[in-house]
Amino acid sequence: MNAMAVYTEVSDAELIAFLATYDLGELLACKGIAEGVENSNFYLHVSAGSFILTLYEKRVAQEDVPFFLALMEHLAAHGLNCPRPVRNSAGAALGRLAKRPAAIVTFLDGYAIHHPNVAHCAALGEALAKLHLAGAGFPLRRANALSVEGWRKLFAPAAARADEVAAGLEQIVTAELDHLERLWPRHLPLGVIHADLFPDNVLFVGDRISGLIDFYFACTDALAYDIAICLNAWCFDANGSFDAAKSRALLDAYRALRPLERREIEQLPVLARGAAVRFLLTRFVDQLEAPRGALVRLKDPLEYLTKLRFHQKVATAADYGLSP
Amino acid sequence: MNAMAVYTEVSDAELIAFLATYDLGELLACKGIAEGVENSNFYLHVSAGSFILTLYEKRVAQEDVPFFLALMEHLAAHGLNCPRPVRNSAGAALGRLAKRPAAIVTFLDGYAIHHPNVAHCAALGEALAKLHLAGAGFPLRRANALSVEGWRKLFAPAAARADEVAAGLEQIVTAELDHLERLWPRHLPLGVIHADLFPDNVLFVGDRISGLIDFYFACTDALAYDIAICLNAWCFDANGSFDAAKSRALLDAYRALRPLERREIEQLPVLARGAAVRFLLTRFVDQLEAPRGALVRLKDPLEYLTKLRFHQKVATAADYGLSP
Repeated sequence: MNAMAVYTEVSDAELIAFLATYDLGELLACKGIAEGVENSNFYLHVSAGSFILTLYEKRVAQEDVPFFLALMEHLAAHGLNCPRPVRNSAGAALGRLAKRPAAIVTFLDGYAIHHPNVAHCAALGEALAKLHLAGAGFPLRRANALSVEGWRKLFAPAAARADEVAAGLEQIVTAELDHLERLWPRHLPLGVIHADLFPDNVLFVGDRISGLIDFYFACTDALAYDIAICLNAWCFDANGSFDAAKSRALLDAYRALRPLERREIEQLPVLARGAAVRFLLTRFVDQLEAPRGALVRLKDPLEYLTKLRFHQKVATAADYGLSP
Repeated sequence: MNAMAVYTEVSDAELIAFLATYDLGELLACKGIAEGVENSNFYLHVSAGSFILTLYEKRVAQEDVPFFLALMEHLAAHGLNCPRPVRNSAGAALGRLAKRPAAIVTFLDGYAIHHPNVAHCAALGEALAKLHLAGAGFPLRRANALSVEGWRKLFAPAAARADEVAAGLEQIVTAELDHLERLWPRHLPLGVIHADLFPDNVLFVGDRISGLIDFYFACTDALAYDIAICLNAWCFDANGSFDAAKSRALLDAYRALRPLERREIEQLPVLARGAAVRFLLTRFVDQLEAPRGALVRLKDPLEYLTKLRFHQKVATAADYGLSP
């Protein structure tokens, strides 16, 4: 769900009191910005420079916030361009503001590319490999709540309404979940994955990636599953057809930094089907739950049904532009 | 209406094409921000610095946009701290982006003070006088659509539902409109007024005003009416009681730069009643028109009923801390 809204207002007095716990100088400006998952984000200008202030709203489990902040700190320390949490005078990256967990991270220049081309996909492949390499050695773990074990639970309460979205959808998803639960690979190389690396979360300046953002789905899972998510999010055209040139560019750039193991390559098609189901399901559930008339832009679940159908016909990873 | 939302999304490709018509360098970042009347606003970072990009949505009449832009340019050229429109390579301050009129203005540091104290009110009085003085000589005129001639028209379609908001409200407003139409002063000094100078639109850094923003209600009207709007917006406490110390500070600071004429002082009570009615009416109509469940924060019309009742009991401007 892409909610273009700020959920919480922060008064000048509470913000100034909060900033007094940091060593960032004087408050100069603070503007609510519309971005990211359902947190409240602010562009923050202080004497020390530009930052992002985030208040964690209920969609992000509060017990997970320390994982996300520690991860961004680890990745930034290992050379990844991503928001770096700022620690307050007591050494803590997480504080409280307006009755919510709150953090300040560095502001990254860059903007999302809405229609990525082959060169953008190559840049993404390189950045994804850098993320996976930078994540090695990160000591914390977080299970992926939106992987195969979670999908049937997510679908069950909404299944009866699936056919409102597309005729036969309940049967299609049920059969796909049967397939995925049977064949989901269990022994692939694990590590920190972003798990939501859509074009919205990859900042470019010109043709160069300036940063990766929005780590609030990050978790410990198969690294190749992160690639599968990116194949879905970056390598289809607006009309729904798969673009093997983009996929090849993404995979080649990735492999140049982190070679893929044979089993990762072999499992790409089933991982890509799983990734398509994951976004089909969350978009479908968001659509059912959204209040009518709300100022929320919903993403189309059917886009992911089209992508799922493509992956269902893929025979081997060669269809993604890779040699097996 | 304080809609904390961005109404229009702008793609990177159309934004880069739009920026190519300016001499501002490379696009570095663009974030939708939640502020102002119902326009879409973006924090824009380019090689030349920080700016605000505004797309004018339907609530601002397109034919009025050149007035607002010319006014900001005039005021900035005459020393007021306000957003200064940036002209494109063809010399125009107004362009088109995402099928809407669009402009780029300078970014001003500063943040709104939610609970202004006496010193803030003094700073406001000084800034308001500077605005009125800087506006002298501005050649364009724009009628105030939300002055006494407009109020009955605004109220009529909603009048039957007024008692849903407060018992007796229809009768109270009707009687007040009778009074105001009879006594509204017609021969006060005119000029450019901001007409919406609420704390949201006055940026402070510390105790100093860094800028006035959001000129999209600005018009040609009695300068003292702008003061009356500020008395309503700045000089009541959260519990609804009038604070004469704030009012005196505001008026004294104003008069130090622009002395008030005797007739302006005498008419302050009726102008203050009118200002209270104007915001009571627009808030009431916004409340009736808002879609249920929308992510919009509505302001309470009854706050202005309380203020109206205070002004109805005012005998002379001495009650605002002024000698007659």
